[in-house]
Amino acid sequence: MPRYKLTIEYDGTAFHGWQRQAGLPTVQEEVEQAIEKLSGQHAHVQCSGRTDAGVHAYGQVAHVDLTQSYPCFALRNALNFFLRHKKVVIKNVEEVDASFNARFSSQSRHYLYKIFNCETPSALEEYRAWHIIKPLDIEAMRQGARYLIGTHDFTTFRASACQSHSPIKTLDKIDIEKSGEFIYLSFKSRSFLHNQVRIMVGTLKLVGAGKWTPQHVKEALEAKDRKAGGPTAPPYGLYFVGVTYDKTLNNTKEEE
Amino acid sequence: MPRYKLTIEYDGTAFHGWQRQAGLPTVQEEVEQAIEKLSGQHAHVQCSGRTDAGVHAYGQVAHVDLTQSYPCFALRNALNFFLRHKKVVIKNVEEVDASFNARFSSQSRHYLYKIFNCETPSALEEYRAWHIIKPLDIEAMRQGARYLIGTHDFTTFRASACQSHSPIKTLDKIDIEKSGEFIYLSFKSRSFLHNQVRIMVGTLKLVGAGKWTPQHVKEALEAKDRKAGGPTAPPYGLYFVGVTYDKTLNNTKEEE
Repeated sequence: MPRYKLTIEYDGTAFHGWQRQAGLPTVQEEVEQAIEKLSGQHAHVQCSGRTDAGVHAYGQVAHVDLTQSYPCFALRNALNFFLRHKKVVIKNVEEVDASFNARFSSQSRHYLYKIFNCETPSALEEYRAWHIIKPLDIEAMRQGARYLIGTHDFTTFRASACQSHSPIKTLDKIDIEKSGEFIYLSFKSRSFLHNQVRIMVGTLKLVGAGKWTPQHVKEALEAKDRKAGGPTAPPYGLYFVGVTYDKTLNNTKEEE
Repeated sequence: MPRYKLTIEYDGTAFHGWQRQAGLPTVQEEVEQAIEKLSGQHAHVQCSGRTDAGVHAYGQVAHVDLTQSYPCFALRNALNFFLRHKKVVIKNVEEVDASFNARFSSQSRHYLYKIFNCETPSALEEYRAWHIIKPLDIEAMRQGARYLIGTHDFTTFRASACQSHSPIKTLDKIDIEKSGEFIYLSFKSRSFLHNQVRIMVGTLKLVGAGKWTPQHVKEALEAKDRKAGGPTAPPYGLYFVGVTYDKTLNNTKEEE
């Protein structure tokens, strides 16, 4: 039973997130339905990290075991045919070893958060970026972000519904860049707690707006209390950019 | 009766273009309805250049005469309140002299055409860019574009429905740039014929794909026959970027 690794882009606006929910449109259901239309098989598609309603992805990764074997490009193109106008695209397909697991084999996950920092909203960026009117102080946000880098108890930056057994995570990177009216915040970690990126963004926004000092982020982190953190930034500014896998552990069959 | 210049961004996907049409959603109707909700006035909003169904704008310009006077920022914010979630945003409002006319005072118009040049489509760029699978030769497209610069009879690049009294136009600029999987074509001219940009893009795409030589563009132009040109590129890759006005002729009141 061949296992395929799928790299998936989606516009999360109209979806109730990745995970299947009865009666609601989800990305998982779209991908599984495309597989069923192609092969007749009821396959389970396992993603590397579930995304919430409204969150987008440039490079979600998933794996699926199919009863039938396909050339990778043909599988990609056939699934995209069934997914056309569904706001979900299979960007890449690789056949992988049975040891590969989209969720558990991942070495690091990459997220991007887009802020549109402008007096007026943007028609073309609606549901694609968080519109903030007041000019944000990027340098202050960078100073605040530095306290979050490294291994910490991120209880302050964790949704109450989070099911992770431990709040200890290692955040490798937060880059904050401005380009015209956009502010791009890039995050890298082996894994994130539920809503961690959005709560970090909501907190750093308070710093950028001058409501918090950068030092306040350190205090919020040390409080280990969700109530000490900033608000959860809206989902539609968040993009799941990609996942890094250790090639030595999870050789793709094509690369062997 | 004060005259206001409005700079307008819109996502053209769900609109049947700028111009009001009975029973169909149009940008003009949205803006005029917002004015009516604010002031009760049935105002006519005159744009600088009508856009077709599916075409977007970062900087459409229009003028309108209102019976009541408003501070510019207040008018902008009030209209945006009534336009919220309509995919139309007033980016700027200026009070202008009665001699200012959004259409007839313009010195040059700027359009951008986005091509997404990738083996697979993009979920997030659907209806935002023209997806072309085959890699395009940018240098050949630039060579072909050079024949279009200057003053010519653009009959080859004119929709049969075009109502312009003359097919003679002066094209100031075509810039073609690649950034990642995107190709951006920028056009500048005092004015354009109906579908001129889209037919030029459809023609240059043939050159980029190697179906036409750059020299073929010159021959098509000289044929002065729509049938000699390439196909009309789809509307959703086209963005009305902005209009330049001669400040010495059309001083805004605020700048006087």
